Amino acid sequence: MSSQRLLLISSSQVYGHEYLGHCLPEIVSFLRPDKPDILFIPYAKKDHDAYAATICAGFKRAGLRVKSIHRTDDPVRAVQQAQAIYTGGGNTFLLLTTLYTLKLLDPIRERVRQGIPYMGASAGSNIAGLTIQTTNDMPIIYPPSFEALGLVPFTINPHYIDPLPEELQAGETRAERIHEFHEWNNNPVVGLRNSGMLLIENDSILIKGEAGVSLFRKAQPPQEFVPGDRLDFLLK
Amino acid sequence: MSSQRLLLISSSQVYGHEYLGHCLPEIVSFLRPDKPDILFIPYAKKDHDAYAATICAGFKRAGLRVKSIHRTDDPVRAVQQAQAIYTGGGNTFLLLTTLYTLKLLDPIRERVRQGIPYMGASAGSNIAGLTIQTTNDMPIIYPPSFEALGLVPFTINPHYIDPLPEELQAGETRAERIHEFHEWNNNPVVGLRNSGMLLIENDSILIKGEAGVSLFRKAQPPQEFVPGDRLDFLLK
Repeated sequence: MSSQRLLLISSSQVYGHEYLGHCLPEIVSFLRPDKPDILFIPYAKKDHDAYAATICAGFKRAGLRVKSIHRTDDPVRAVQQAQAIYTGGGNTFLLLTTLYTLKLLDPIRERVRQGIPYMGASAGSNIAGLTIQTTNDMPIIYPPSFEALGLVPFTINPHYIDPLPEELQAGETRAERIHEFHEWNNNPVVGLRNSGMLLIENDSILIKGEAGVSLFRKAQPPQEFVPGDRLDFLLK
Repeated sequence: MSSQRLLLISSSQVYGHEYLGHCLPEIVSFLRPDKPDILFIPYAKKDHDAYAATICAGFKRAGLRVKSIHRTDDPVRAVQQAQAIYTGGGNTFLLLTTLYTLKLLDPIRERVRQGIPYMGASAGSNIAGLTIQTTNDMPIIYPPSFEALGLVPFTINPHYIDPLPEELQAGETRAERIHEFHEWNNNPVVGLRNSGMLLIENDSILIKGEAGVSLFRKAQPPQEFVPGDRLDFLLK
């Protein structure tokens, strides 16, 4: 996977920032110097027109041009010709199911492996992993499989949060849920806190953003990493 | 469904109470006067022995006898002969998948419709609904379907929580997630706060416990109900 370039963003909305505000500088830096047109994948939400309008407006602030895939005649060809891809957040089950229905998983995989930059936020980051099995979303649609793009050899938990004060905690903590995942599955899980991002280039994974990462591996205690740390060992 | 008796508990663990402490009096009241032996369904967790030991000890405090289904030779027959059922919490996808694998959904449905008391906590309450599509759990196992027991004509969101203070909220609020569900599905959703329970007998649904319920219906604003209120209209 050495020619891949991915920017996996935990959340498009971070407390204290306007929508996309915390990650737009990183996106601009990731796309430089050529600022290619971005193909937007809005399938994690139902109202594609409204979603595309929001994203176009957000990206325009940074001088980036966006075309939404739902406005193209042939989504597969749109991916094959894309110069950059941004997949937005929403519901991960809905997103994955739509990608299966439109037969877009293989074309996206191929295009990213050819070297075009892939960006995702929340559900859009989640599907870059091996499966969607560490999503926080409700299973509102039954997908044909939980297998996702597998661009990285782990699964992602977006919006990772540490345990809340006990009186606010309702149900299992996020770490407990990931532990349950590891009772049945072997893949490492990257818990990406809300303002965190992973920049993946060549054989390196660099933690960007304002918050660190909790890395969960089966039968091991979680490990903490901070922005600036690398997780390259996950790609070996 | 007029002969059904169900006690659907949001959580076995509530802040300020010992394990099962907030619901044991309600369970005893629900089972009186005969205190039948309870068939425990531990499939929402991996370690059935440990889980059964915990539940047996908890219920013993209230003078209740429990036998775990995983200790029986024939789970289907155990359900057919059960005098009462308690399904524990854990991971809803794991629980439902195991019920499908062991072909237990129909036997449980039939037995409950014959009138034996059914109790569930968290995942065990969730599967009493039409589907598991408003679970909070991670999809750690791929089930053959999201359809559940359908003992009640709605879906349940256990551990329902109101939006957190903005600086603690990571990702969508629970209400936003249920709104996404209703963009694709029509069933009412009962958001059962952590210390809440539903007592369903004949044609009535009574809210028990210490916390109220948020009721979500498609394209309608959520409605709030408090302990002592009835939701009988959901059964019409």
